[in-house]
Amino acid sequence: MNRKSFGFRALELQMATVKEEELPLVLVHRPPNFHFPFKHLLQTHFRLLDPLDSDPPESTHSFFSRYAASVRVLLCVDPTPITRDLLSLLQLIVGSSTGVDHIDLQECRRRSIAVTNAGKAFSPDVADLAVGLLIDVLRRVSAGFQYVRAGLWAQNGEFPLGFKLGGKRVGIMGLGSIGAEIAKRLEPFGCAISYNSRRKKPSVPFPWFKNVYDLAVNNDVLIVCCTLTEESRHIISKDVMTALGKERVIINVGRGALIDEKELVQLLVRGELRGAGLDVFEYEPDVPQELFFLKNVVLSPHCAVATPKCFDALEELM
Amino acid sequence: MNRKSFGFRALELQMATVKEEELPLVLVHRPPNFHFPFKHLLQTHFRLLDPLDSDPPESTHSFFSRYAASVRVLLCVDPTPITRDLLSLLQLIVGSSTGVDHIDLQECRRRSIAVTNAGKAFSPDVADLAVGLLIDVLRRVSAGFQYVRAGLWAQNGEFPLGFKLGGKRVGIMGLGSIGAEIAKRLEPFGCAISYNSRRKKPSVPFPWFKNVYDLAVNNDVLIVCCTLTEESRHIISKDVMTALGKERVIINVGRGALIDEKELVQLLVRGELRGAGLDVFEYEPDVPQELFFLKNVVLSPHCAVATPKCFDALEELM
Repeated sequence: MNRKSFGFRALELQMATVKEEELPLVLVHRPPNFHFPFKHLLQTHFRLLDPLDSDPPESTHSFFSRYAASVRVLLCVDPTPITRDLLSLLQLIVGSSTGVDHIDLQECRRRSIAVTNAGKAFSPDVADLAVGLLIDVLRRVSAGFQYVRAGLWAQNGEFPLGFKLGGKRVGIMGLGSIGAEIAKRLEPFGCAISYNSRRKKPSVPFPWFKNVYDLAVNNDVLIVCCTLTEESRHIISKDVMTALGKERVIINVGRGALIDEKELVQLLVRGELRGAGLDVFEYEPDVPQELFFLKNVVLSPHCAVATPKCFDALEELM
Repeated sequence: MNRKSFGFRALELQMATVKEEELPLVLVHRPPNFHFPFKHLLQTHFRLLDPLDSDPPESTHSFFSRYAASVRVLLCVDPTPITRDLLSLLQLIVGSSTGVDHIDLQECRRRSIAVTNAGKAFSPDVADLAVGLLIDVLRRVSAGFQYVRAGLWAQNGEFPLGFKLGGKRVGIMGLGSIGAEIAKRLEPFGCAISYNSRRKKPSVPFPWFKNVYDLAVNNDVLIVCCTLTEESRHIISKDVMTALGKERVIINVGRGALIDEKELVQLLVRGELRGAGLDVFEYEPDVPQELFFLKNVVLSPHCAVATPKCFDALEELM
């Protein structure tokens, strides 16, 4: 199931001179605490209906039912779940994330509802964060910061050595637009890139491994940035992580459930991985507390795509 | 004063079969808590005399005085100060750091003592950390980690947006081997590189600014990685930082005293800079405590060069 395999229907942007009540209606589906940076600009083109703006906030389902007769487009902000019961009468779902695993795609297909995603708008930012997390874990930036803050530098002297990035073999799990951006960035650091994807990509110069197990065995770092589907859920299994071994590092900027999180936590707690940099988690916003104070783990609150410029790119795309 | 302008005298490495007492004597000058990763290998070629190995540890000065008649070479581990009174009778000082500002160079010149430095051995690792600190500050990795650890993600929702690295104008202060490695790494992130150095470098494709003030005015990020000399002390003055302005970021992987630290702290505390990533400080290991809990500041305990591989490279060089 490819992220981009669901047709993209261009929205005809209205001129800002049109009266507000004449603007096309768009239902907004967002989590309660989400910052909505492109709202203002969208409002010049669409009349946004947001159940959380009602006073008191209305339940998504009852609100949507009320507007279902007049609205055909749903704007899904952040990966808010879209289940079967929300889909009646919609024609288009505009996803604002790269993954679309929060949308019931099977039901959409049955009802001929088009689903769009954020495409490549987020890829450079996600790649930047992946590289940042990798440097942080290997060079112990966060741990070093804690050391300084705790006053230990003056008290105990030198901070223990970190690990060199140059020369590391980096295996990228999923060489889509994000994976390709990561590879482009890591090459000048002197990393040796290889990848796993369903098929070998003829235009890509890096070695290809036919499965994630082989990718893990042959690399020092595993960067997970593929799509989450039913088939890829827990694809980074205990076996794969054990194959990766004690000296290795995992970075995840894809989706939390690509990794068997429970097993990952066990391996990290027992010191059976060198470290991990995680921007995504299986049960967000819940993060396993066992990881909070491990010195070789860096945790980021799913903000790989969260830069205002990134939303400009998304806004343009939508 | 160029880092590499002091002649390098090759040390004739002895065969390991030579008896220990016949090995050339080398005085070791190191800070008390420093990990000494290449000691073991050096011991196969030299007899290392270390005042801190005495029981009880002897003062550096009295120990050195005792051996001054038989020793000609001083190995300076980490930037431990070498002052005039330690220089009598030495012929060679082998510095293990890139900077040599901890050595009284004027006195060395007067006494015809050769001084070597670590040359390019550390450059890739320093460049890696500079990029890591920049991503961390812009994308708020450390602040995001704190947010997760404090349980605020589940409680308050989305973490505030960070800033995009792509498109940033990055000014490099000192385009030596470290600066060149930083430029090479940042180009694939979509950064526009420019630099300041004493003279324009004909082989370098990036725009050159004739002074640090112009560099600051024309860039979003200032990366400081030049040599500390009497002329470059506090070269990043209050004026330069004010010219840089509120939306800008400073990264320092050179030496702490290149920046007027007192002024930097004031500007950061008053929110007059977007952020800073600092691996070096004016009075190490003392770090200004005002910076400890600012969300836009990342502090690292001078570990830009601290990877074991990096010491392998150094060891070979020495």
